[in-house]
Amino acid sequence: MSVPAALRRYLPILDWGARYDRATFENDAMAAVIVTIMLIPQSLAYALLAGLPAEVGLYASIAPLFLYGVFGTSRALAVGPVAVVSLMTAVAVGQVAAVGTPEYYGAAIALAFLSGLMLVAMGLMRLGFLANYLSHPVISGFITASGLLIAASQLKHILGVPASGHTLFEILGALRDNLDQADGRTFAIGLAAAGFLFWARKRLKPALLRAGWRARSADIAAKAGPVAAVAVTTFLTWALDLHEKGVKIVGAVPQGLPPISAPPLDLALWSQLALSAALISAVGFVESVSVAQTLAAQKRQRIVPDQELIGLGAANVGAAFTGGYPVTGGFARSVVNADAGADTPAAGIFTALGIALATLLLTPLLFFLPQATLAATIIVAVLGLVDFGAIRRVWVYSKNDFTAMAATIALTLGFGVEAGIVAGVALSIGLHLHRTSRPHFAVVGLVPGTEHFRNVKRHDVVTDPAIFTLRVDESLYFPNARFLEDCILDAVAADPAIRHVVLMCPAVNFIDASALESLEAINQRLSASGVTLHLSEVKGPVMDRLRRSHFLDDLTGDNFLTQFDAYAALSPELARRVRAAERVTPARTAMAH
Amino acid sequence: MSVPAALRRYLPILDWGARYDRATFENDAMAAVIVTIMLIPQSLAYALLAGLPAEVGLYASIAPLFLYGVFGTSRALAVGPVAVVSLMTAVAVGQVAAVGTPEYYGAAIALAFLSGLMLVAMGLMRLGFLANYLSHPVISGFITASGLLIAASQLKHILGVPASGHTLFEILGALRDNLDQADGRTFAIGLAAAGFLFWARKRLKPALLRAGWRARSADIAAKAGPVAAVAVTTFLTWALDLHEKGVKIVGAVPQGLPPISAPPLDLALWSQLALSAALISAVGFVESVSVAQTLAAQKRQRIVPDQELIGLGAANVGAAFTGGYPVTGGFARSVVNADAGADTPAAGIFTALGIALATLLLTPLLFFLPQATLAATIIVAVLGLVDFGAIRRVWVYSKNDFTAMAATIALTLGFGVEAGIVAGVALSIGLHLHRTSRPHFAVVGLVPGTEHFRNVKRHDVVTDPAIFTLRVDESLYFPNARFLEDCILDAVAADPAIRHVVLMCPAVNFIDASALESLEAINQRLSASGVTLHLSEVKGPVMDRLRRSHFLDDLTGDNFLTQFDAYAALSPELARRVRAAERVTPARTAMAH
Repeated sequence: MSVPAALRRYLPILDWGARYDRATFENDAMAAVIVTIMLIPQSLAYALLAGLPAEVGLYASIAPLFLYGVFGTSRALAVGPVAVVSLMTAVAVGQVAAVGTPEYYGAAIALAFLSGLMLVAMGLMRLGFLANYLSHPVISGFITASGLLIAASQLKHILGVPASGHTLFEILGALRDNLDQADGRTFAIGLAAAGFLFWARKRLKPALLRAGWRARSADIAAKAGPVAAVAVTTFLTWALDLHEKGVKIVGAVPQGLPPISAPPLDLALWSQLALSAALISAVGFVESVSVAQTLAAQKRQRIVPDQELIGLGAANVGAAFTGGYPVTGGFARSVVNADAGADTPAAGIFTALGIALATLLLTPLLFFLPQATLAATIIVAVLGLVDFGAIRRVWVYSKNDFTAMAATIALTLGFGVEAGIVAGVALSIGLHLHRTSRPHFAVVGLVPGTEHFRNVKRHDVVTDPAIFTLRVDESLYFPNARFLEDCILDAVAADPAIRHVVLMCPAVNFIDASALESLEAINQRLSASGVTLHLSEVKGPVMDRLRRSHFLDDLTGDNFLTQFDAYAALSPELARRVRAAERVTPARTAMAH
Repeated sequence: MSVPAALRRYLPILDWGARYDRATFENDAMAAVIVTIMLIPQSLAYALLAGLPAEVGLYASIAPLFLYGVFGTSRALAVGPVAVVSLMTAVAVGQVAAVGTPEYYGAAIALAFLSGLMLVAMGLMRLGFLANYLSHPVISGFITASGLLIAASQLKHILGVPASGHTLFEILGALRDNLDQADGRTFAIGLAAAGFLFWARKRLKPALLRAGWRARSADIAAKAGPVAAVAVTTFLTWALDLHEKGVKIVGAVPQGLPPISAPPLDLALWSQLALSAALISAVGFVESVSVAQTLAAQKRQRIVPDQELIGLGAANVGAAFTGGYPVTGGFARSVVNADAGADTPAAGIFTALGIALATLLLTPLLFFLPQATLAATIIVAVLGLVDFGAIRRVWVYSKNDFTAMAATIALTLGFGVEAGIVAGVALSIGLHLHRTSRPHFAVVGLVPGTEHFRNVKRHDVVTDPAIFTLRVDESLYFPNARFLEDCILDAVAADPAIRHVVLMCPAVNFIDASALESLEAINQRLSASGVTLHLSEVKGPVMDRLRRSHFLDDLTGDNFLTQFDAYAALSPELARRVRAAERVTPARTAMAH
């Protein structure tokens, strides 16, 4: 790769930036305005969810967006603080420091730094495929459970009572214990804000359209719902002195650009945070990439997952050096960005400018903003992530996938986010290994009128009693090698008519060293009882590998290109007759299969 | 299952015991005499290797053998202390107590108890398949590395210097540091014993045969080599007062049957030992089952792996209650037992009686036994486990398997047995997952003169440019779902001639929920660019599952029984012409594949 090509690979901005024009600028700028309006209350709220001062959310929405714009490949992904990662940050940092202390903030910065380094390293090593191990049911269950957990954790702000905890039971228990301290005015604000936001999300746009607004304006106004809620409740709090009557407010938010800070260089802290950083990186990356892929496919664009790792990693490293905390691509925000017409990652860069302006100009206005309003915006946002329909669909399709999903949900709710995601990944890998360790083997016979072999239990097929053909429906490797031995030797022991065993291998994608030992043992033991072992339809890569061992030399039988060739050689009369017979099975089997 | 059948299942002794006769008794008794002679020095030596008093080895060779005889299914397996498990015991117990203390002995007993409980529980839950995750290259590498580690650890006894450590570097470093304290007489005894034992193992039997001995007597005499070494060096030590001149001896060994003891009921200790107990159980079970299966196959017998778990578990629980330590089936000893004619597990019960007699009568004779002699017997035994040839064979056959094996060896030598075995298992599972996440996909075409489709890169085949047929050589599940998306969409984007994509699925053994989402995405995106998606050769179980989703309803194309049917429907002219063409590929392809 020449240097410019390498540069273009790692700096996608050189590619799209070279073709940047006025029309693109107008689209990007328009999208940036809308996303900025949406992001201001979100970033404040998510920072509070992470246990951090509200302004940290704004800091995390400037440099990270700029850096993602330079290094990222998605045209529409809107990076910044998101709910699930904020919750995971609170859990991780809460294990090493107390909320409100400088150590807590420092640990959040260190977490962003570690997570950024991990993401960049994975991108450079092209390890993006690792994210695939967060299977779809696990991530979907995790997001649903996290959404419920976050919504529950915000109830304390709506009720105005102290309550903390990392599991659903802890949170609900603390709420119940402190319910007598609930504050009526806080509750009124929180409930009104939540009610308005739910209504705005579903009904505001149709209402504005009916009132004669143009589609785009109606859309923007609907997205500005949280800003309206913030403005109205802030004004009321100031006007009615509600903060002196028990309503908790955001208070003084420092005015000015983010501080340039270095993450604390504390190896003991880093090693305590390493696992959490890895989990946050994984969840953030998977969420972000799936949003980015969905949006890219809609416009026939492609994203580059390994470069996305670098883009998100740079964003997090940037957050660490500018007083922010872990960020990733947000779902709702990216959809809004795409809908609003974002054409290039420059939209994110313009959003960063918008947020920077806000930190310079708007922060004094946030003093009287009630925490209950922010809690209401969080609750409305995260309940949109909860997808009970997915649970039902997975239940119908696959009980194994459902088990992994249900365990993820139950453990996330009952033991916290880290336990949930780790258990989900471990369980889905464990269930997969268990499944391949008891693979599907089918005894097959010849479909009359064809050269095709199918399962004797499912199709009208013809077999020669002297030939036992086993179609192995799985690669042969250590977890199932012994199972194959048992399967074949038991079948041959039970039927003295068998003279030939044919292993039909179209589904065998590889044979590892453990399975090779098993095949050698099968060959020897069959040979001792006068039965010949043959292979058929062994694939090229598997055959290449077998040639490196002695197995093919020791094999008592032959190695046939097709299973029909095996029958033609071992039972020519039957093969000829059945091939010539009339065909009974329909060729097209959409429903009759 | 009726009660007697259940009893027979869990008590194999009821089965073989009912047919026991005089001839069987004579065979078993003869084997027991030989194994007893072999086991006495081994059990003393392995107990010292585990850091325990010598008599504990004898205690571990009485009740466990009896209990395995009652519950085990192998006719020839000889249970008792073995080298690798003794080393693992030393490592595990050394982490919680100091050698020589009552706590150390108590922890070894607790380890046997925990390991026994785990084995029995796994047997009752029929979890024997879990042992398959110790792949052949990993276990083979682990045994080789453990053998080297054990041999190195015994050099201190041969040299008469203090040295300890759990890794090769620690052991060799300690030996080097203390080499100036080496004792000449000890070294002479150790070297002579080791030389004699190596010679006896390879040359004694042929020499005796040449001298006119009968084969069986020569065999027994050769196996008695260690006993001869023990007797001669013990006599010399006594006669020359070598123990007063610096030669370390076994010293006072209590006379009498094993104490009846209860394992310490200490939950904190148990939780510290739990992981080690699990590893010891796994390694012990895998070693034992593979020996038992090899010996059973030679005599066309079967063993029942889940019942073996119960047999070995009962043996370890028995060890815990009679002052012993973890045991399992030994390789060399079991081969000797089988060769000597053992017909039933009764041979093990008779061996237990032999060892019991020895503890009653022979222990005073062991006072002057030099530790160097026992170290020599261990070194000669474990070097027989080292198999460098296996490393070479695995290297040639599979680099992935070799990686797991090499990591197991390197980590076992460099970081100790527990790190080695855990890393080996984790790496072999990780490599397997990585392999299936980048699966083999082949573009296939029709072999002229047949209805068979093969890889276009490997065979002379015919294709229709409008039909892109991809044979998916792997089950579709979460680690590779996204890879399939990329693969198909890139191919279609690169070739505008493509009108039909056929996924040929004979190797797809299941499709999980994540892959189903990918297939739905592929179908939608192809549809948007006017390309139809078809399936062919989908297997029954996979089709059953797809019917539970909406995918088949949404599929833009058809679902064909065979790939030839797909061609016959989508390109009938070409299919007919190529089917009728002359065949060029040979049917039997042992070498021409």
